[in-house]
Amino acid sequence: MKPTIKDVAKIASVSISTVSRVMNAPDTVVENKKKRVLDAIEELKYKPNALARGLIYKKTHTLGVVIPDIRNPYYADIIRGMEDASKKSGYSLIICNTDTDGNRLFSYLNTFYEKQIDGLLYTSNPIFPDYYKELKRLRMPVVLVATHSMEYELPSVKINDEQAAYDATQFLIDSGHRNIGMISFDLGDSIAGQTRYQGFVRALRENNLELKRDNIFFVSEYFHDPYDAAESLFRQSSGLTAVFAVSDVLAMGVLSYLNEKGVAVPNEVSVVGFDNIRLSAFTVPKLTTVAQPMYQIGYRAVEKLHALINGEADPVLREIVPHEIVVRASTGRL
Amino acid sequence: MKPTIKDVAKIASVSISTVSRVMNAPDTVVENKKKRVLDAIEELKYKPNALARGLIYKKTHTLGVVIPDIRNPYYADIIRGMEDASKKSGYSLIICNTDTDGNRLFSYLNTFYEKQIDGLLYTSNPIFPDYYKELKRLRMPVVLVATHSMEYELPSVKINDEQAAYDATQFLIDSGHRNIGMISFDLGDSIAGQTRYQGFVRALRENNLELKRDNIFFVSEYFHDPYDAAESLFRQSSGLTAVFAVSDVLAMGVLSYLNEKGVAVPNEVSVVGFDNIRLSAFTVPKLTTVAQPMYQIGYRAVEKLHALINGEADPVLREIVPHEIVVRASTGRL
Repeated sequence: MKPTIKDVAKIASVSISTVSRVMNAPDTVVENKKKRVLDAIEELKYKPNALARGLIYKKTHTLGVVIPDIRNPYYADIIRGMEDASKKSGYSLIICNTDTDGNRLFSYLNTFYEKQIDGLLYTSNPIFPDYYKELKRLRMPVVLVATHSMEYELPSVKINDEQAAYDATQFLIDSGHRNIGMISFDLGDSIAGQTRYQGFVRALRENNLELKRDNIFFVSEYFHDPYDAAESLFRQSSGLTAVFAVSDVLAMGVLSYLNEKGVAVPNEVSVVGFDNIRLSAFTVPKLTTVAQPMYQIGYRAVEKLHALINGEADPVLREIVPHEIVVRASTGRL
Repeated sequence: MKPTIKDVAKIASVSISTVSRVMNAPDTVVENKKKRVLDAIEELKYKPNALARGLIYKKTHTLGVVIPDIRNPYYADIIRGMEDASKKSGYSLIICNTDTDGNRLFSYLNTFYEKQIDGLLYTSNPIFPDYYKELKRLRMPVVLVATHSMEYELPSVKINDEQAAYDATQFLIDSGHRNIGMISFDLGDSIAGQTRYQGFVRALRENNLELKRDNIFFVSEYFHDPYDAAESLFRQSSGLTAVFAVSDVLAMGVLSYLNEKGVAVPNEVSVVGFDNIRLSAFTVPKLTTVAQPMYQIGYRAVEKLHALINGEADPVLREIVPHEIVVRASTGRL
């Protein structure tokens, strides 16, 4: 049987309202009582029923969104999806930009807590242990968006990044390319770095193609200059007939660089991007890319969070949405 | 002498704390008292000293940002500037997206009011009388960002849009172009529509060039398909050697369309954009554009709001920041 708030109160030798206060307004509870309650919660693996939470806590019909970098056009459509789903369910959406900075994230989580949001949409970045601890401490219902966690039992919506990168690479191989370059995110990024790199490597391996270290250029942060990344890749490698860039913005840098150098796309070099941001349909030439269903990711995330807040069961904890290779004019057969 | 809260209380025959409550939590004051207070405020032209406000109201060190369309990459750098200035002054920034929808704006203003933000950054859209009335009712310090109001005494930061469009057009004329097309926002948009159109028209007039109605295509909303806008312009006009598009995204549509039709840029047609969003440096060819100092606009807006919240004098109510023509590869001499 699932433990209840009563069980927690009993084990901690406090009243039910004290348990509630520990979850709701922990600063109002003296340290030793708080510790007993948190220990009891831990011991019983108690998870407050979200419906009960709703009865205890005043709902504000506001959801908080944390995004790591508002300059990334990738978030525009995700937020649109979130907005539309929020409107449907009667929520307002307030958005904060963390700049991928842990301190700012903590500060914003606390702002959200003070503003009494009903739940949190956490996008793109990995969940580190201290982040998880803080989310748990604030007792904030959370859905991970375009990220997920294998360590923690947190609901999430994203594509299969490894498979998506594999498919992009396989598409180039099927078009006759054998010497393929990659512009990759840093491997320290477990969400979009490691995964897409692994997909690329797997496609080469399954096709018995050699993995040349010089064919891969790693950008250390999302806003690495895309033109410079392209230049670095072509300086360190030789004879590339195709490039797979892990974001459309990076792919635009490749198109710009190749145009500058008088290299014809796709006649001499094919280029594939990732995301399918709106502007990728207006590049010269139009960009072939791995489309993420950004709008759908945002929409589903709010639906999941809404269900969580209302204590409804969600059948899939780590939800994977489909990606798709959108073929435009920047790729050709070799 | 400036009227004080005492004067308002005296004229309205209520206590000072009632006046304060009318400004702070108007719903807690009975209607006839509230009316007397508001009438007295009106009669005396009383403006609560923001410092006094700070003493009366609990500060939350949170600023609210209202943006009309998060898909527009133009806001990315504005928000970056706001973020940095906010960090410096110890504010958190919460952002809402209104979709240029008046009802959503009202809903978000009330969300912000409930969340007790210290001040509001209102971007891009005109201030309509009912918006102004609501802002006044909520007694929310506000700075207009990339928009302004001639009707109301509200502080603002923006460029001179008319002059910026004039300069872009004059730049094309100086390069030998005589038959120049324009993709314009709707003239109902008094901020970026009317103004830029007027600047374009003035440049033609001062150079004794004919204004051909068919040379201008109006997009009705920001997210009009840029490729389609370009196609429409070239279908209705003839012999254009240059196009001035009022956003970089629209200019990207022109580049994409011309490339598709095999028209060389800039050899056959020159293209000028507006904004200088980050991606305009990676278009093919790189885009000549009217640069707005977006980061600075965001930064200055927060500084102005901070001064307002703290009751400091701000010497310039309607602040104009400089624009600049950034010449890249999409334009040439005829």
